Amino acid sequence: MPHIHLPEGLPGIVSGLAFRPETARPMRELAEILLRGPSSLTSGEREMIATFVSTRNDCYFCQTSHRAAAAHHLDGNYELVDAVRFNHQHAPVSTKLKALLEIAGKVQQSGKAVLAEDIERARQEGATDLEIHDTVLIAAAFCMYNRYVDGLATFTPQDQQLYDEMGARMAREGYVQPAHRAQAAADTH
Amino acid sequence: MPHIHLPEGLPGIVSGLAFRPETARPMRELAEILLRGPSSLTSGEREMIATFVSTRNDCYFCQTSHRAAAAHHLDGNYELVDAVRFNHQHAPVSTKLKALLEIAGKVQQSGKAVLAEDIERARQEGATDLEIHDTVLIAAAFCMYNRYVDGLATFTPQDQQLYDEMGARMAREGYVQPAHRAQAAADTH
Repeated sequence: MPHIHLPEGLPGIVSGLAFRPETARPMRELAEILLRGPSSLTSGEREMIATFVSTRNDCYFCQTSHRAAAAHHLDGNYELVDAVRFNHQHAPVSTKLKALLEIAGKVQQSGKAVLAEDIERARQEGATDLEIHDTVLIAAAFCMYNRYVDGLATFTPQDQQLYDEMGARMAREGYVQPAHRAQAAADTH
Repeated sequence: MPHIHLPEGLPGIVSGLAFRPETARPMRELAEILLRGPSSLTSGEREMIATFVSTRNDCYFCQTSHRAAAAHHLDGNYELVDAVRFNHQHAPVSTKLKALLEIAGKVQQSGKAVLAEDIERARQEGATDLEIHDTVLIAAAFCMYNRYVDGLATFTPQDQQLYDEMGARMAREGYVQPAHRAQAAADTH
């Protein structure tokens, strides 16, 4: 049972966001920019970084929903996402992404754990400053989202079909609330 | 030296925010709502929660700047802020704030560390659902800001006078970028 009276029937972070729309707006916008905004990293790669960090933070809702979102960006390849989650150094992804995942894993522990040599390795594998910046911030942001979800003890569905559908929606429609989009559209008429 | 090429001469998070204005906007907005928006917790109390979490995350820039912001909300009472930072259970603050700090300290470790009995205690001391929600989110958000600042190895000034001035500005003007404010004002003319 959630620690506070959150709107019923909404899963995970969605219930916290519905409880407090004022903070929900920037939290949704940040996820949208980081995971789906213009970037030289694909959304599949960025969702895998988010999933990797959420897995290390042991946040069931976030790791399961973003795992599904990543898979939906990758033609349904859940196997690849799980390889990154549990054994990233041997996963069939680019050496650049492996180096970025290494940085994300350090950020999950502590910002100070990131060493100059971790950055150097990512650079040698072709990572740009912006890619390094966004990797650090995705990892840091999921240290927030994960703690928010579990710190409120939000409702955590177990139905895997539901996460698959949620992931498909996250990959297709993103993180900015449909109501905001509808309002924005209405405002222009 | 910062891990990536951040704008020079800007301290701590300010350099990361200047490097990436797209992500800066929601990050600034979230801090503004959580620390200075309408709330039954004072800004002084909320800045002390932020300082407490940043201290536990060992983030020098954030703990020193928010310590100063908190003090400026509290008539310059740095002593009180430091009592909360280092010995909150015996600090001369309300039993409600002590219970909320206990929750924030748990969130800093992990969302799952927050137990029903921690929430129950805060409720008994008079905390509302919204105050508990915001405490969890302030703590979670500073787990992001702290990791962002240290994960990029941003420039960390040591001059205490500078932090005092920064804290005064944070307490007086808040977190939304002056340029945005100026632009918003210009748009209305």
